[in-house]
Amino acid sequence: MEFIINSSNVNFIVLAASVIGLGFAWYQRRWVLAQDPGNERMIHISRAIQKGAQAFLSRQYRAIAVLVVGVTIMLLVLSVIPATHMSPWTALAFVSGALASGVAGYIGMYIAVRANVRTTQAASESLNQGLRVAFASGTVMSTSVVALALLGISILFLFFTNTLSPHEAVSALAGFGFGGTSIAIFARVGGGIYTKAADVGADLVGKTEAGIPEDDPRNPATIADNVGDNVGDVAGMGSDLFESYASSIIAALTLATLGGGLAPDKMIAGQIFPLLVATSGLLIGIWATFLVRTKENATQVMLLGSLRRGVYAASIGIGIAIVLLGLALDLGWGVIIATLSGLAGGVLIGFFTEYFTADTYRPTKDLSESAQGGAGIVVIRGLALGMFSTIAPVMVVVVVTLVATAAAGLYGVAVAAVGMLATLGITLATDAYGPVADNAGGIAEMSELDADVRKRTDALDSLGNTTAATGKGFAIGSAAMTALALNAAFITALQGAGASNTAFLVNVLDSRFITGLFMGALLPFLFSALTMLAVGNAAQKIVEEVRRQFREIPGIMQGAAEPDYEACVGISTNSAIRQMILPGLLAVAVPIVLAVLAIVGQDNTLGQFIGRETLIGMLVGSLLSAFMLSVMMANAGGAWDNAKKYIESGNYGGKGSDAHKAAVVGDTVGDPFKDTSGPSLNILIKLLAIVALVIAPLLAQTPLT
Amino acid sequence: MEFIINSSNVNFIVLAASVIGLGFAWYQRRWVLAQDPGNERMIHISRAIQKGAQAFLSRQYRAIAVLVVGVTIMLLVLSVIPATHMSPWTALAFVSGALASGVAGYIGMYIAVRANVRTTQAASESLNQGLRVAFASGTVMSTSVVALALLGISILFLFFTNTLSPHEAVSALAGFGFGGTSIAIFARVGGGIYTKAADVGADLVGKTEAGIPEDDPRNPATIADNVGDNVGDVAGMGSDLFESYASSIIAALTLATLGGGLAPDKMIAGQIFPLLVATSGLLIGIWATFLVRTKENATQVMLLGSLRRGVYAASIGIGIAIVLLGLALDLGWGVIIATLSGLAGGVLIGFFTEYFTADTYRPTKDLSESAQGGAGIVVIRGLALGMFSTIAPVMVVVVVTLVATAAAGLYGVAVAAVGMLATLGITLATDAYGPVADNAGGIAEMSELDADVRKRTDALDSLGNTTAATGKGFAIGSAAMTALALNAAFITALQGAGASNTAFLVNVLDSRFITGLFMGALLPFLFSALTMLAVGNAAQKIVEEVRRQFREIPGIMQGAAEPDYEACVGISTNSAIRQMILPGLLAVAVPIVLAVLAIVGQDNTLGQFIGRETLIGMLVGSLLSAFMLSVMMANAGGAWDNAKKYIESGNYGGKGSDAHKAAVVGDTVGDPFKDTSGPSLNILIKLLAIVALVIAPLLAQTPLT
Repeated sequence: MEFIINSSNVNFIVLAASVIGLGFAWYQRRWVLAQDPGNERMIHISRAIQKGAQAFLSRQYRAIAVLVVGVTIMLLVLSVIPATHMSPWTALAFVSGALASGVAGYIGMYIAVRANVRTTQAASESLNQGLRVAFASGTVMSTSVVALALLGISILFLFFTNTLSPHEAVSALAGFGFGGTSIAIFARVGGGIYTKAADVGADLVGKTEAGIPEDDPRNPATIADNVGDNVGDVAGMGSDLFESYASSIIAALTLATLGGGLAPDKMIAGQIFPLLVATSGLLIGIWATFLVRTKENATQVMLLGSLRRGVYAASIGIGIAIVLLGLALDLGWGVIIATLSGLAGGVLIGFFTEYFTADTYRPTKDLSESAQGGAGIVVIRGLALGMFSTIAPVMVVVVVTLVATAAAGLYGVAVAAVGMLATLGITLATDAYGPVADNAGGIAEMSELDADVRKRTDALDSLGNTTAATGKGFAIGSAAMTALALNAAFITALQGAGASNTAFLVNVLDSRFITGLFMGALLPFLFSALTMLAVGNAAQKIVEEVRRQFREIPGIMQGAAEPDYEACVGISTNSAIRQMILPGLLAVAVPIVLAVLAIVGQDNTLGQFIGRETLIGMLVGSLLSAFMLSVMMANAGGAWDNAKKYIESGNYGGKGSDAHKAAVVGDTVGDPFKDTSGPSLNILIKLLAIVALVIAPLLAQTPLT
Repeated sequence: MEFIINSSNVNFIVLAASVIGLGFAWYQRRWVLAQDPGNERMIHISRAIQKGAQAFLSRQYRAIAVLVVGVTIMLLVLSVIPATHMSPWTALAFVSGALASGVAGYIGMYIAVRANVRTTQAASESLNQGLRVAFASGTVMSTSVVALALLGISILFLFFTNTLSPHEAVSALAGFGFGGTSIAIFARVGGGIYTKAADVGADLVGKTEAGIPEDDPRNPATIADNVGDNVGDVAGMGSDLFESYASSIIAALTLATLGGGLAPDKMIAGQIFPLLVATSGLLIGIWATFLVRTKENATQVMLLGSLRRGVYAASIGIGIAIVLLGLALDLGWGVIIATLSGLAGGVLIGFFTEYFTADTYRPTKDLSESAQGGAGIVVIRGLALGMFSTIAPVMVVVVVTLVATAAAGLYGVAVAAVGMLATLGITLATDAYGPVADNAGGIAEMSELDADVRKRTDALDSLGNTTAATGKGFAIGSAAMTALALNAAFITALQGAGASNTAFLVNVLDSRFITGLFMGALLPFLFSALTMLAVGNAAQKIVEEVRRQFREIPGIMQGAAEPDYEACVGISTNSAIRQMILPGLLAVAVPIVLAVLAIVGQDNTLGQFIGRETLIGMLVGSLLSAFMLSVMMANAGGAWDNAKKYIESGNYGGKGSDAHKAAVVGDTVGDPFKDTSGPSLNILIKLLAIVALVIAPLLAQTPLT
């Protein structure tokens, strides 16, 4: 391989692979759109979902655009002040990252709202056909996300390394990650509020009060509920993982450039390596998507097996590529082991998440059983399950960090994150498949199709719940590794240009560091409180509107009059947009404010109370507390959801039993846990870390005492 | 005052004050016991509660004794190995601390189970009389706790400073705190499991299934429920706060001796100061108890006012004492300000806790209102409330830490903790009063006394809920400050004898430090999961037993046959004892194992993965995560409890309405939150920190790289 790997043509390889990826995504998109969208009623419903999703994303992006413009101006202003040492190109990178992240989310939403109805129709033919359509739409998003990230980074990096010094180049590149995260936080929070408000609201009145099934066309909130799946679970997740992916590569490039444990003569090889690992991940991921297919009349286990086959094959392929690339670039076994440890860690986290949340294992089975003790007991047990489940990802991150650092220093941590995320091309596809299958079921119900079709879509949907839980575990674990890598890059950058020392000493008894830790640990709690309250408030509004329609529209319960779906869509949209602002701004503003105070306090008494130590403490504290909370919420939520489904499948009295009612309460609590607050926390920690990295040049001038 | 304050007679003063405190407790005990215990039925019931509580504590203490003997032997063995630099007197201090903590808890239980029935009888006379009896029993425990702690510390310190070098003396003294915490962790966990298993179990079958009121004599679990209040909320809390109190003084003595920011010539004054602040707190607290009285027919607000008057008067008195002592000892305004900041912080945390949990303020009012949306919504909102409420204690701890450190260095943090806890003589009395009033109500119900009596005990009980919530906030805040002080003492001790430098540098990018942080953050989540599951399991067993009795004992529901109360008491006892072992051992073993591994790994590859940095990281990580979780759990639990009571008092449909049913679910979740897991976490963080301080001499030898 020696002859293709050198710095002059690497960017060409990466660019070419990105173009291949986008081409594949385009091809898959055409294939999906060429499928039969079904009968008129199905098309009518699907149009309503499309319209709602489109409208929400437009409004959301317009709202975010204000922030993007504001931050861009701020970055430009900072860059004209010579003392800040900040490049004006940071602003360009920021805008590019924001655009790419937004486009990634948009593509995901675009294909999902078109694939849903086609999946329903395909499922009316056969199970395998349904799986193919839904999964193909997942690959459109996953390949686009990966290809866009690689495209953006390689173009900017090529341009910056030719224009700026290596240090300035990586510093400006951090702007790309910042742009991506800024979109991601609002997309996840806004989408998360939307989807859960509609879901909880629809269930509370529909299922509980009126006693009609989920997705019943008589429920005015049912379209909003289906829109939510697309804007929250698809678009939000696309922006989120786009950003993890981009940031892990940026952190590796930064550490390679600043010398985070690599020998000085390995700088170029250290930059090339993560880019090529990611590139090989993209191509191998595309290959692995062809392995996902199943026999007709496949069981749940076989369906899951077919998705797993793709993920495991890709992981093995990427593992081989990592070894070959490491050897070809002569980076030594240390770097290879570090990268492999990340790859293995990602697979392990996925496995353990499944263990804690799938109803085929003890924890969720026990949770279902406890539902017989009532709602209180099932909530207590679910929270305990979520808390206990943190042990797996924490120990994986601990072992990966120790192994990667021992093998390759700080750079090892960054390439471990890259290794973990290298499988994104396929893992994200299995994850994005879920909401499409969910929507497909909803459309089948609303179009009053055959019970057979609904049964097939239910099988696809149930599989999607498992992959969604696994995907969340993966998203959290990779976010933590990425944040660790970003923190390492930030602290290394603080030491200024040419620092070969990778030690960064902080007095652990420094009250600024300690109080920074406390404030950092506080932030995720506040953030979660705000997002959970937002879901509660928005759901309450939906409940009132649905009750109003049931009361005021005559014939609605007999199916004689169509409910006003758009009213609920409008309420969800407005609530989500309004309520995403505060938590989003909190996340963006806190590190900036702390940094400004640290700089202001440089030469006066304020410096006794606040300094760079505060900011570092805050990064560490928020990483710890957000990671724990996020895992707890995601796993408790997943387990409650599956415990409810397990009871619905006929255990402990089945649907309508007291145990079922108790399990529904657990699931209601789990909804904002797993789809709003939990996933948003991933982005919170990455956002704090990347903001810090962007403003590192400002801070590098203040002495650390 | 100059003439009385010098090192030779300070110990005499402290001893004398301790004896006065114990004498006052004895006097109050006599007064309480001299009150009328009521009619035969009341005495019969109260005997059953006494017997159950006594039996549980005996079994619990016997189980803990095994651990105490084991640890004592371990400490003695370590002290004969010269390389450990550990004094054999550490073992003596450990045993003394364990004994004193156990005695403190026992005294609290002893008086509470005798005051309960006398409070009922007194309440049948008048409200003021009821308050007097219940509060007097609270002062017995609070004064005993404070006096025992001061007595133990002053005797040991006097003895050690005459036998050992100053450094060895404070090092051995840490054993006293270790002994106290070892008892406290089992007392809180065991008592917490007991009380909530009985409470939840009794409610689930009694209130929900059988539809009989709380404390109804027909419910077989009702005696166990009342026993639980005494062994969990009284004995457990006594041991807990005994330990915070002792440890804060020990941390201050250690830092004064090792030079944590104090000028070398201030060592003796720095040692005397915390002892005398605590002593004045004891005496002023006794004086302030006389201010607690109320008019007949007092409203809820007046009752609360009378308790508050005592706390505020004591705080002002102690504030004045701090200033006078600081000036007399010539320690300068820095030390005075640091101590006062702690005192003020404690009062503020109490106030904010009340704001978030009392139904007179918005948060709990809103929570009650949300109960109309169903159980899911009320749980979501309660969790969000708990998460949001962390902002107040975190910011108080942040500000106190910054102010105290800026004013007086690390020593400032320790005296801030001492200042915060100086009011314990009265705050603990208001807190311990709660379970007695709760029991009094239970006895009134079981003895079928007049509705008027029950109304008065309800008023006393409701007040107790507010003071209990405030007390929990205070316990958590002071635990965090104490843990910070202990950590500072530990890290200072690591630097070895004679270190004047109070900086302790850790490479924040050191993977051992980072992984230590993660493991530390994990610990409280595991610990909480275990304790919550324990409550769930034990409650389940109670439920089954109660159902069995309802089924198998004929005439039980008609009141014709007496239920088998002892069976439920036995089940609670067995479950609590068995299930306290694992979480308790986890807390004691983890720091010891990490320390051993750090020492073992000193000169080989293991040292790359584990070292003192791991232990330090773990201390910091667990402090952060336990503090956040603990506040969240305590406040969410308090708010759910009061939201339920608010609805029961006639709002949103009152008792039996759908909103009430939803609120009961919230309260069930809140029970283990606020009375088992949350409070146990306080002890967890103190335990980790004090174990580290005890083994600091071993670790001081391994170089920090």
